Amino acid sequence: MNAQTQAPHIIVTEVGTRDGFQAEPDFIPTERKVEVINGLIDAGVQSFETTSFVSPRAVPQMADAMQVMAQVRRKPGVRLTGLVPNARGAERAAAARVDMMACFVSASETHCQANLNKSKADALADVHEFTPIARQFNIPVRGAVATAFGCPFEGEVATQSVLDVIASYHAAGIRHVSLGDTTGMATPPVVRRTVKAIQQQFPDVLIALHFHNTRGIGLANVMAGLDLGVVEYESSIGGLGGCPFAPGATGNICTEDLVYLLHESGFHTGIDLEAVAAVARSVQDWMGKPLPGQYMKSGPRLKQSDLSSVRRAVG
Amino acid sequence: MNAQTQAPHIIVTEVGTRDGFQAEPDFIPTERKVEVINGLIDAGVQSFETTSFVSPRAVPQMADAMQVMAQVRRKPGVRLTGLVPNARGAERAAAARVDMMACFVSASETHCQANLNKSKADALADVHEFTPIARQFNIPVRGAVATAFGCPFEGEVATQSVLDVIASYHAAGIRHVSLGDTTGMATPPVVRRTVKAIQQQFPDVLIALHFHNTRGIGLANVMAGLDLGVVEYESSIGGLGGCPFAPGATGNICTEDLVYLLHESGFHTGIDLEAVAAVARSVQDWMGKPLPGQYMKSGPRLKQSDLSSVRRAVG
Repeated sequence: MNAQTQAPHIIVTEVGTRDGFQAEPDFIPTERKVEVINGLIDAGVQSFETTSFVSPRAVPQMADAMQVMAQVRRKPGVRLTGLVPNARGAERAAAARVDMMACFVSASETHCQANLNKSKADALADVHEFTPIARQFNIPVRGAVATAFGCPFEGEVATQSVLDVIASYHAAGIRHVSLGDTTGMATPPVVRRTVKAIQQQFPDVLIALHFHNTRGIGLANVMAGLDLGVVEYESSIGGLGGCPFAPGATGNICTEDLVYLLHESGFHTGIDLEAVAAVARSVQDWMGKPLPGQYMKSGPRLKQSDLSSVRRAVG
Repeated sequence: MNAQTQAPHIIVTEVGTRDGFQAEPDFIPTERKVEVINGLIDAGVQSFETTSFVSPRAVPQMADAMQVMAQVRRKPGVRLTGLVPNARGAERAAAARVDMMACFVSASETHCQANLNKSKADALADVHEFTPIARQFNIPVRGAVATAFGCPFEGEVATQSVLDVIASYHAAGIRHVSLGDTTGMATPPVVRRTVKAIQQQFPDVLIALHFHNTRGIGLANVMAGLDLGVVEYESSIGGLGGCPFAPGATGNICTEDLVYLLHESGFHTGIDLEAVAAVARSVQDWMGKPLPGQYMKSGPRLKQSDLSSVRRAVG
């Protein structure tokens, strides 16, 4: 594929202000969150997992969900999604005028218990309880499947467990799912096996892929997704979402590195890569720690160096 | 592909003690270099770009090339390559009993001048001068093509420039080339275009790919190489070769992350991944700075976490 052919459009959903910031122990001021989202909207990002309407007691970092939604700039064509665990969350999300609600249930029972403190059956019952509220407000719902490519407690996750969650989502009227690589266990063969099974069994469902770069192969998994025709990927600005130096580093794949790969591979995103990299650098600056993203450090591929500045390498 | 099918063997060439350590400003003690190589030999790595027989004045870090080669453990089936710039280097490399010599010429004229302080024509003349020495000692030669996917000074590099260097190598009897992504400019389409042209024009030449992760897409480029049937990749333990925090971070792709991707994708390497990760962690420890490799921080994909240790994430 090259720039001359009709390049497919890929949706890049920014999850940094939700999945990324949620991993931060200290509360990030609301104005910082809003600044990141507004900066990325200006850079052409059209889809966000903006915040989460979970209990502020469970996740204090997301306690300002209403304020974030009230303060971010709205722009036609930009989709601001809010994570919603139950009917109460759906009421708040609707009041905050989200463009989309995202529900989430783990494919593995143990992770569902650990994450939500309830069984998969109960979590799915909550989804079925709140989807009518979303429908009432004419707000579409995306169904996230956590631990879709493996569970840190149970190990390998059967494809059937993923299909079962999607079947329940489908019965609730959901036609858009996101497969979450919660702890970075996705590999190209597991991605292929899982996506193909969903494409076959639910041809009317739009699939998004949500990878973490825990074991360094996040963008290799994107390559597998692109081969299968998957047109939506979730990523975090700067690769936020985990400390690269801690054991078990678990950042999301990095938005600007993803966009670089997509553009170079001939896909459209509508995103201004340099503007996104500038936002990543500013986030890195005020967070005061190096983020894993590479593109923001290296700059454009065809940026030409000054010959005189170069130390000889010899080899 | 899965474990049941006949998995192709992939050669992983470790370049950390040459390309990686060469980027370090302080001299790394010879015993450290030897320790890394011996540790990786014990872990099953079968191919090394061990050291460089360039002028010690030009590259002080490689001044101990003879000592490194004298001290590393020799093992049947393990190939220890030395980088060789000219006839004088070839004499030293032969005396050090390297298993393979690697010559290197840039595809772009400007980079060749900057790196070797000579023109491409002169650098190729040097190759033609030293290959008879290698032949005399029955030592095979691998021809590295630097800036094969782009040049930091000239920008895009024409495929023809790569083919021209390989044609000269071929005329010198070389049948094994390594395409160097010197400053991390390779992308999947550029890899496809370049590798296909070489496969077509030089079907008798074995191709190795040498990527840097400068813009985060090194393993995506490996995916492109695997699709084309390329069976040799060069990488650095821990992703050595560049500071991840400096502007223009330029580490090689990381050996253990690469091996993880290969094994999970159904390829054989003969390498014990956990043993390689242990070497990476020890290198990171004595270097006293975080290395970019992810796998060594996260551990095995199916490692099962202790449920009680987990903070709830909610989403």
